[in-house]
Amino acid sequence: MEVLQAIKTRRSIRKYKKDPVPQEELEKVLDAGRWAPSASNLQPWKFIVLSDFKVKEKVAKSLAWGKFLDEAPLGIAVAADPRVSSHPVEDGSIAAYSILLAAHAVGLGGCWLNPSASEEEVKEILGIPKEERLISVMSIGYPAEAPSSTRKELKDITFTNRYGSK
Amino acid sequence: MEVLQAIKTRRSIRKYKKDPVPQEELEKVLDAGRWAPSASNLQPWKFIVLSDFKVKEKVAKSLAWGKFLDEAPLGIAVAADPRVSSHPVEDGSIAAYSILLAAHAVGLGGCWLNPSASEEEVKEILGIPKEERLISVMSIGYPAEAPSSTRKELKDITFTNRYGSK
Repeated sequence: MEVLQAIKTRRSIRKYKKDPVPQEELEKVLDAGRWAPSASNLQPWKFIVLSDFKVKEKVAKSLAWGKFLDEAPLGIAVAADPRVSSHPVEDGSIAAYSILLAAHAVGLGGCWLNPSASEEEVKEILGIPKEERLISVMSIGYPAEAPSSTRKELKDITFTNRYGSK
Repeated sequence: MEVLQAIKTRRSIRKYKKDPVPQEELEKVLDAGRWAPSASNLQPWKFIVLSDFKVKEKVAKSLAWGKFLDEAPLGIAVAADPRVSSHPVEDGSIAAYSILLAAHAVGLGGCWLNPSASEEEVKEILGIPKEERLISVMSIGYPAEAPSSTRKELKDITFTNRYGSK
């Protein structure tokens, strides 16, 4: 799928088919996360693939807006280590978006489930060291819905040379 | 350009040709930022296109690792408003990466210049309100270099169901 088209047509998918995600497709998606840029190329991230239903169920219960995670065939959690990079949130977020875009490109769908309200709880479930940050948990699978979305107009969010000037 | 290929072949470009960036290409790139996902689709971002040499020069002087910004035909700054979204760093970072990927897809190159060490100074130059965050300043132009890059192996950064377990 072409880049600009992929960026514009990617949607947050919350309903999934039962079909499993082939290992080959999963690896393409993780590889996209691996090739994301990071500050000074320090790559402070770890990706945790959630395939065990019990693990997905526990994480789903902890997430305020991610109750559907246990209905997705897979989850992917992105942790980032502030001891490795001083920009773990930027780097981890970019890796997560790279994963979501690649998922869309290979026909999968995903949704970023924000863990911040229960970050410590989910870290404990997944065994993520206390020193690391949990940036994103994503549900991944073949879409069983095709939601639409909207964005603000470009003219309303773009300035030239100075904030506020058109 | 195909998504997975674009993600893997995008590089941080620090040397640029003198050729100007056509308005049409700039709009494609900004549009990619506009279509990035954000928490609850709140789109807390503003994009400031830096085309005035004096503005680019001032910002370049303020950035610890972005001295080459004034040699790029364009800059794009991404601001994000914590009053609009509780996740301005995640959202702004994703929009910036969307812009960098789209730039690569249309044959341009860019480099994320981290403003954090001089965030307040650059915000003042660009007139960004004190309440907002400056997430990224990017240099944009046609590449005059083709740098290589490396990443950690997937097996060394990926776990299954639990941090540390293969």
